[in-house]
Amino acid sequence: MSYRAVDLIAQKRDGHRHSDEAIRWLIGAYLRDEVPDYQMAAWLMAVCWRGLDDGETRALTLVLAGSGRRLSFRGFGFPVVDKHSTGGVGDKTTLVLAPMLAAAGIGVAKMSGRGLGHTGGTIDKLESIPGVVTSTDPDALVAAVAQRRIAIAAQSPALAPGDGRLYALRDVTATVESIPLIASSVMSKKIATGANAVVLDVKVGAGAFMKDLPAARQLARAMVRLGQSVALPTVAVLTRMDEPLGRAIGNVLEVKEAAETLRGRGPDDLLEVCLALGSEVMVTAGAERSRPTARRLLARTVEDGTAFVHLLDLVASMGGDARCLADTGRLPQAPHVVDVPSPQDGFVAAVDALACGQAAMRLGAGRATKQDTIDPAVGIALRAKVGDHVSRGQPLFTIHAGAGKPSGPYTARPEPVEGRPSTGSGRAEKNPARLRAPIHARRPVPVDSSEHTGAGGADQAPASTTGDRDDQHERPVVEQVLAAFRWSETPVSRPPLVLATIR
Amino acid sequence: MSYRAVDLIAQKRDGHRHSDEAIRWLIGAYLRDEVPDYQMAAWLMAVCWRGLDDGETRALTLVLAGSGRRLSFRGFGFPVVDKHSTGGVGDKTTLVLAPMLAAAGIGVAKMSGRGLGHTGGTIDKLESIPGVVTSTDPDALVAAVAQRRIAIAAQSPALAPGDGRLYALRDVTATVESIPLIASSVMSKKIATGANAVVLDVKVGAGAFMKDLPAARQLARAMVRLGQSVALPTVAVLTRMDEPLGRAIGNVLEVKEAAETLRGRGPDDLLEVCLALGSEVMVTAGAERSRPTARRLLARTVEDGTAFVHLLDLVASMGGDARCLADTGRLPQAPHVVDVPSPQDGFVAAVDALACGQAAMRLGAGRATKQDTIDPAVGIALRAKVGDHVSRGQPLFTIHAGAGKPSGPYTARPEPVEGRPSTGSGRAEKNPARLRAPIHARRPVPVDSSEHTGAGGADQAPASTTGDRDDQHERPVVEQVLAAFRWSETPVSRPPLVLATIR
Repeated sequence: MSYRAVDLIAQKRDGHRHSDEAIRWLIGAYLRDEVPDYQMAAWLMAVCWRGLDDGETRALTLVLAGSGRRLSFRGFGFPVVDKHSTGGVGDKTTLVLAPMLAAAGIGVAKMSGRGLGHTGGTIDKLESIPGVVTSTDPDALVAAVAQRRIAIAAQSPALAPGDGRLYALRDVTATVESIPLIASSVMSKKIATGANAVVLDVKVGAGAFMKDLPAARQLARAMVRLGQSVALPTVAVLTRMDEPLGRAIGNVLEVKEAAETLRGRGPDDLLEVCLALGSEVMVTAGAERSRPTARRLLARTVEDGTAFVHLLDLVASMGGDARCLADTGRLPQAPHVVDVPSPQDGFVAAVDALACGQAAMRLGAGRATKQDTIDPAVGIALRAKVGDHVSRGQPLFTIHAGAGKPSGPYTARPEPVEGRPSTGSGRAEKNPARLRAPIHARRPVPVDSSEHTGAGGADQAPASTTGDRDDQHERPVVEQVLAAFRWSETPVSRPPLVLATIR
Repeated sequence: MSYRAVDLIAQKRDGHRHSDEAIRWLIGAYLRDEVPDYQMAAWLMAVCWRGLDDGETRALTLVLAGSGRRLSFRGFGFPVVDKHSTGGVGDKTTLVLAPMLAAAGIGVAKMSGRGLGHTGGTIDKLESIPGVVTSTDPDALVAAVAQRRIAIAAQSPALAPGDGRLYALRDVTATVESIPLIASSVMSKKIATGANAVVLDVKVGAGAFMKDLPAARQLARAMVRLGQSVALPTVAVLTRMDEPLGRAIGNVLEVKEAAETLRGRGPDDLLEVCLALGSEVMVTAGAERSRPTARRLLARTVEDGTAFVHLLDLVASMGGDARCLADTGRLPQAPHVVDVPSPQDGFVAAVDALACGQAAMRLGAGRATKQDTIDPAVGIALRAKVGDHVSRGQPLFTIHAGAGKPSGPYTARPEPVEGRPSTGSGRAEKNPARLRAPIHARRPVPVDSSEHTGAGGADQAPASTTGDRDDQHERPVVEQVLAAFRWSETPVSRPPLVLATIR
């Protein structure tokens, strides 16, 4: 049967469903350059509008998965799993979970992305370790899993290249935000990677792509159904992303925290997410029958240090200096490190993950565009999380800033700068009036509480003179992180971290 | 202020409105090739989804109108009006109305399109008269109006070229069907043409682009408001297009009918539409205060023959042989003309204009694609309209077919063919089993009523074996027109022709 792209666009525009054959024809013709970008763009927007049902999503996913190589881990003698996160702030889960699973006898094969926007990427975190070079060679990934049960590579253009092409078009046509398109993009890569089971960490909340639980649940269900429909056992865990995960935001800081966690000294929430995701995927992969047993097995890999050994092994296999993980002082350090004291007494009621992620990005920890380079050492370390009591003047968070990175008026009194001087080439300087004092090295500066109470958060931020949204990025980093905190006079209990599991 | 196309696409996708400045930037950047087709295509689909409000539509229209030349008819001593039809079957209104208005002292300046699909174009009709050459020169249009108050030219690429570009993209991305986009496309050309007032004939019904009254009313209102917002007095008349307008469908046949109408011998419905549109635009242009007076003035131009003289004058000015209009036997004739008898006694309850238009297109009267050439002489002449009583065996319609054009099984008994033989190169022959007998010249053939009752119309058409919609085009022409008729045993009153007027 022959089709015309314009008829299929009209069909979707009018809310009708496509046959599997029609989807295969449309996407295939696009990838063969027989359907132009402008017709695909119109179709993608019609899909944002009308959606795709399970059958259509499956057909699309299979075309994308089949557009390049498909790896296989058959006959490895152990199950090989894959893991995907929809992206959060401070999300170093892969660096903790993968070694735990490997130590528990489960293979982990992960093609990972680089970070874009306020969420980080595992590849960027790994590459912040001196010496690490990530491979994009699919055969090397398979060989590495065979050899040491754990391998993390950068997304290979040989796997699901059709998804890469479609995503690039979605990115510039505002058609990213569609549950079936997101689901097909994620799952096409998982299918091509060829693992035996997949666990999806679907983040929900202010710092996540999915802001609310119903939408996150919908996405999770779409992906799990999609996996099941192509015989790829898939489980999704919905985890809270209102405050950053753990305490560290920024590449080196997160590597440190991952290593600390595998040595039993990490934050509770990070470990909890890893145990939840890990136990689910062990059961989904058929490696364990009981989730509590899987959980205990995984917890033991931390207690007995075997998981940490697997992280060292992974890093060494990528050419990295594994000594850095045992002695984190060897990791790159930011030239300017400053503790920011709490402006008030109280219980932390909330820490806005999005604001923290954006602040870290402004420090240079993330990319605003794909062309940006990142500074591995910079970032933010929270000294208090939701539920903690803080006294006025106690450190609330620590800023790790690079030379010349944005700084700002968290004090009206200029202070002498140690280490390399701030060269003043950061973004904050678009508006020189806002640049009063650079953040200085390891010397806390008293905050003028009348100027920066923090209590009102963003609502009390200095009024924007233009009202345009770029102003957000001009606000000094420290002020932005201070404004991310919400306070309570009475004790605050931490809400549950795992919101739902979709099997 | 600077914009990014992707942000504006997202803004529209999320249902927000654009500022005038944003619209001007987006469309301007597109026309300067700074925004690519694929981003514009995504935006257009988002507009189909979310719409544009009056302010956005006005901003878009003004950018398109300002993308080329703008004509002016100031100081002409008489008002100059423009007329637009959204397209119907058998719609030769312009050929009748323009001479009537000219005879009543009103200037008419019309840039007209060619036909595409089942609706015809005024330019194609005019060019079916031997010798007629249509101009696309805007200056010639202005000069011709100055000289003889009436001029019809083919759409000039110098006027609103931006609309032409945008329309070409809409055409291939299934984004034509959007009321604000249609309204802005129509009105941008009207603004550029520069007339003092505009009358819009918005067709409603099975044979029209707008199938139902609420949608047609919405479009009419959008266009009238748009005209008013740019100080271009505009009136819209919603007219019924369930059965074809008049009796003739096909270019020469419609020219004949237009000439007959201006000689007082045309069908009532055609004259009625012309009087309604003409009286409305005379009042809208400020040439008359009273609609009944305007109507009487226009009716008199037919009675006294002055309108017909203006048609002769128009045709002669375009190089055409005006004698053809007084002696229509001089017009091109189809080689095969056959009366098709009624398969039954009864009152005609409905004649499906869309089916008639498609049948005429299959005969070669219209274009399926822009590259198709048309045969001026072919078409269909209805011998009965809604409300008429017909006896079995009486002529129901007449087919004017060209040599080698589609023919088909309206009889199971092959008949000898006069004139040029059917060469069998028509579309119907894709399925040779359906090709039983060519239509023969001027020799009525009895129809086997057991095979083609016509009573059930399309519902009783031979069952499609594939169910695909192309099958529609494979059905022989005669069968298709027979199936367009609905019958009643009791008298049927004709519904009103003018459904609403939007001022």
